[in-house]
Amino acid sequence: MTPAKPTRVIFFGDSITQAGIQPGGYITRLKDRLAKENKGNDYDVVGAGIGGNKIYDLFLRMDEDVIAKQPDVTFIYIGVNDVWHKSTHGTGTDPDKFIKFYDAVIKKLQAAGSKVILVTPAVIGERADASNQQDGDLNQYTKFVRDLSVKHKLPLVDLRKTFMDYYQKNNPDNKEKGILTTDRVHLNEIGNQLVADEMYKALVAVK
Amino acid sequence: MTPAKPTRVIFFGDSITQAGIQPGGYITRLKDRLAKENKGNDYDVVGAGIGGNKIYDLFLRMDEDVIAKQPDVTFIYIGVNDVWHKSTHGTGTDPDKFIKFYDAVIKKLQAAGSKVILVTPAVIGERADASNQQDGDLNQYTKFVRDLSVKHKLPLVDLRKTFMDYYQKNNPDNKEKGILTTDRVHLNEIGNQLVADEMYKALVAVK
Amino acid sequence: MTPAKPTRVIFFGDSITQAGIQPGGYITRLKDRLAKENKGNDYDVVGAGIGGNKIYDLFLRMDEDVIAKQPDVTFIYIGVNDVWHKSTHGTGTDPDKFIKFYDAVIKKLQAAGSKVILVTPAVIGERADASNQQDGDLNQYTKFVRDLSVKHKLPLVDLRKTFMDYYQKNNPDNKEKGILTTDRVHLNEIGNQLVADEMYKALVAVK
Amino acid sequence: MTPAKPTRVIFFGDSITQAGIQPGGYITRLKDRLAKENKGNDYDVVGAGIGGNKIYDLFLRMDEDVIAKQPDVTFIYIGVNDVWHKSTHGTGTDPDKFIKFYDAVIKKLQAAGSKVILVTPAVIGERADASNQQDGDLNQYTKFVRDLSVKHKLPLVDLRKTFMDYYQKNNPDNKEKGILTTDRVHLNEIGNQLVADEMYKALVAVK
Repeated sequence: MTPAKPTRVIFFGDSITQAGIQPGGYITRLKDRLAKENKGNDYDVVGAGIGGNKIYDLFLRMDEDVIAKQPDVTFIYIGVNDVWHKSTHGTGTDPDKFIKFYDAVIKKLQAAGSKVILVTPAVIGERADASNQQDGDLNQYTKFVRDLSVKHKLPLVDLRKTFMDYYQKNNPDNKEKGILTTDRVHLNEIGNQLVADEMYKALVAVK
Repeated sequence: MTPAKPTRVIFFGDSITQAGIQPGGYITRLKDRLAKENKGNDYDVVGAGIGGNKIYDLFLRMDEDVIAKQPDVTFIYIGVNDVWHKSTHGTGTDPDKFIKFYDAVIKKLQAAGSKVILVTPAVIGERADASNQQDGDLNQYTKFVRDLSVKHKLPLVDLRKTFMDYYQKNNPDNKEKGILTTDRVHLNEIGNQLVADEMYKALVAVK
Repeated sequence: MTPAKPTRVIFFGDSITQAGIQPGGYITRLKDRLAKENKGNDYDVVGAGIGGNKIYDLFLRMDEDVIAKQPDVTFIYIGVNDVWHKSTHGTGTDPDKFIKFYDAVIKKLQAAGSKVILVTPAVIGERADASNQQDGDLNQYTKFVRDLSVKHKLPLVDLRKTFMDYYQKNNPDNKEKGILTTDRVHLNEIGNQLVADEMYKALVAVK
Repeated sequence: MTPAKPTRVIFFGDSITQAGIQPGGYITRLKDRLAKENKGNDYDVVGAGIGGNKIYDLFLRMDEDVIAKQPDVTFIYIGVNDVWHKSTHGTGTDPDKFIKFYDAVIKKLQAAGSKVILVTPAVIGERADASNQQDGDLNQYTKFVRDLSVKHKLPLVDLRKTFMDYYQKNNPDNKEKGILTTDRVHLNEIGNQLVADEMYKALVAVK
């Protein structure tokens, strides 16, 4: 009897995902956990993150970087740069265009036979009192992702909520970095483990 | 016996204050209320608002537009454009420079013999769920104003708090305008009355 | 004997093209000229401009607004907002993404059987001494369009060059508007006629 | 007989000037040249540059960092960040405010007894064909500095012109960096020497 083909899982995203495949990264930690629980052979986990990517970068490169690899499950983990680059490059993504391209990415993935899991953008700044520069805009784009998960009836890894809940308990000094990130955006060890655990829950819940 | 000289009050600010002296504006409403309560002769209320102004515009024009008029009480009502113009012109105000110029404006007013009352910037967008694009940044600059009022032991009209509290009760549909503003920023009738009432409270409390 | 089917021509663009179909607009003027020269029945000229559009807006709506209408010739007239919205909304288009989406639009039009004519973005500000805020960036995006016309061997209506040449002779006072535009961007009567004439030359040259 | 007190010279600026006092920096090179020509004891040359500074930073810190040191000659070398930070932080300087603060800095220096020399901002990007993103805006702010030198009858070190002339001869491949800068903005060895030589000429011409 031959073993079942492993489920191919792709994490599709930006620099956070690009770093996720490094030692200590969230994808590495997810794989470690799967291995420890003797599920290592059930999943073939791939990182497809490129620094600076916004939703329309994912759209432009999805044929080559994702669909060509025939994923069974794809996590879409994007949104930080769509907001952040408004301030740092003048090239963020318009709200309505974010939704349109996100919608197009979901549909193309589904048409290619992949299950799709959505992930909300976590943070740009870790202050717990809603005073990080992009908090309002990030809340807005998070709502877009939540709405898309409802519209398409897709699982959601709501990292923004997970992070906000974490800060309420673990950021009493209202620091802007150093809690779950090293630099306000990219994950430190605790952040990578937290994300790995949330991704794990969503992954094993896929039928 | 000659009547006492009226207290000269200057509202120093941006387009919201520029509109405040129009019929229905918050300064006009404040004057009406003072008149109705027979305090019309106790106060000489002046508007000094110019559209698009940021804190350093106030600094640059304060000698001519405020100090030359020898105010007894000056309300500093600024901050919306310091945040907003980051997105719309690329010329918002750096956080540390906002504090430095604000501090300089306070000191120059006090040195000229005016009492000073600080006002927090109210809103750019009226959504009640913290998802207006500039909410995080506006919260940050509001904190700067609150901190300056503590540092200089000055009265504070905390419009941002007043508006947020109002929305919790009166914006159940999470509209982005039309509650206290016409266009996400500038005051409608209810907004002008609310601001007039808050300014009134601070003014009559001045000793 | 039945008359030949007229050549369907679509102008695909932003607010400049949206205004082009109004009385006095460049598309209206082009039609008038064709009619005067007894070519009115040879061409079926359609405007497909929407205010605020950038290259990726064209990409997102091209199936419905252009390809569904089966054009024989499509003018792509875009680029001003890709540059301008960096400053006014923080949502301009990255240089490399501008090229990628533009390339994709060309390919989809050609695959749908349309001939394609490229148009460079004319101006944001009419000063003749290279001191309009976006001049450098507009020159950069103009080069991208010129390069794409070379790469795909496509006709080019180089409006930026046409306008610059015009200003050298006709803007001795270095005005920033009122020469070919009403407001630094949108065409006045002379501007609409100039654009109509340039488009005419490219159109009748199509084989 | 006691030697004459040396002429105190302050270079007042941003990161380019901050780096100017390093080995190989333009201020260091200027001092070396003065020493070689036996003028080392005639001048006391001081760098007062801080990274990220815009014109209003100079205004805010000029009492402490410049006037307290009683300069005989002050070079104002600013403007790159006033333009650049529009794109990278959303906190560039409005054109009219740039002029107002620049004017105020000149007047305060003159009132404190310093001669003043103006310097135009050189480059953000070294392409020779006017297609660097900020070329238009930098040309505009350069004109402001030139106009201020005329208005106040002050010597001008027109680095922008010097650099542009240099590129016409020495940047045949239209590179965006590596000619006079390391990174599009900060000076390499050749750039530091070129600036040192231009500053030298202006300094020894002071009466």
